[in-house]
Amino acid sequence: MKALAEIQVIPIGVGVSVRKEVKRAHELIRASGLKAQLHAYGTNVEGDLETILSTIKQVHETLHTEGTPRLSTNVKIGTRTDKEARLEEKLFDSGSS
Amino acid sequence: MKALAEIQVIPIGVGVSVRKEVKRAHELIRASGLKAQLHAYGTNVEGDLETILSTIKQVHETLHTEGTPRLSTNVKIGTRTDKEARLEEKLFDSGSS
Amino acid sequence: MKALAEIQVIPIGVGVSVRKEVKRAHELIRASGLKAQLHAYGTNVEGDLETILSTIKQVHETLHTEGTPRLSTNVKIGTRTDKEARLEEKLFDSGSS
Amino acid sequence: MKALAEIQVIPIGVGVSVRKEVKRAHELIRASGLKAQLHAYGTNVEGDLETILSTIKQVHETLHTEGTPRLSTNVKIGTRTDKEARLEEKLFDSGSS
Repeated sequence: MKALAEIQVIPIGVGVSVRKEVKRAHELIRASGLKAQLHAYGTNVEGDLETILSTIKQVHETLHTEGTPRLSTNVKIGTRTDKEARLEEKLFDSGSS
Repeated sequence: MKALAEIQVIPIGVGVSVRKEVKRAHELIRASGLKAQLHAYGTNVEGDLETILSTIKQVHETLHTEGTPRLSTNVKIGTRTDKEARLEEKLFDSGSS
Repeated sequence: MKALAEIQVIPIGVGVSVRKEVKRAHELIRASGLKAQLHAYGTNVEGDLETILSTIKQVHETLHTEGTPRLSTNVKIGTRTDKEARLEEKLFDSGSS
Repeated sequence: MKALAEIQVIPIGVGVSVRKEVKRAHELIRASGLKAQLHAYGTNVEGDLETILSTIKQVHETLHTEGTPRLSTNVKIGTRTDKEARLEEKLFDSGSS
């Protein structure tokens, strides 16, 4: 099933700056092959729901293996049957000011 | 990998009342075998991360099959390597007033 | 306007254990006079929307004053005009297994 | 206190398409004077925490007045005392693929 999602990974126990771990999470999401758009509060993705979920699992496993002791991840998942979900469709203007 | 999570399913396009669909989602989560605690903003679960993620997928597939045209799901996932994650550990008092 | 909300405060930069700060946030929420129910992923509240929002502000200000360098808070807010929003109404069974 | 936030408004009871209401919410956020960046899962804002919170209240009040019977809003709020929070700082690359 096709889905859209937003994935925000919050590393805990690595200090006040979490930039390195958040960047690594984004790299792993992009490497998954999902269409990915980075923003200040996470990475929006478009693709197969199963791929999205396995990517989340891989991000947790990889960051823990690489030394992050604790992760709190926020995920929003959107699916619909009336038409195909696309990231672009959710934007109604150029939207930055 | 062991994980805690909160799963909140928001059905869209079924009207102002979403009680039937939210109840159905909670039933599916409980049927997964995960330890599950219902509250006003979702169902907290404890179990294997892979089971948690496959349960989310099953909830989306089942609710769509049963007629909900659109779903927006919020998930919080917590994992840690310093000690075992348990729902009870996250509660520090009896907490209701 | 009457509202329901879920408030989850994630302290960053205080180490792997965040129990002390999360407990403090919950105490501040209860002290606000809002009806409050603690669970593993936050505190659910019921009350006036303005009180809920000012309580969130107070939690951030107090925790920073008391030494937490960074906070990432997740809030879900629900309002409706068709009937009065109540925490109990959102629960459809005893819900723990 | 300066803050960053992500605001995602989910209208319930207006049908499967929520585009009109989501667009209206974004317009209200931009009209608040907060720095605002639209993306597929919400509007990221930068500004005074009090202005952010009063804007959320205004969005709920306005959308209800204009006919939306129920709203479920997700907000992420970030504050820090070690340095000034800025939306741009949270982006570590151009990030779209």
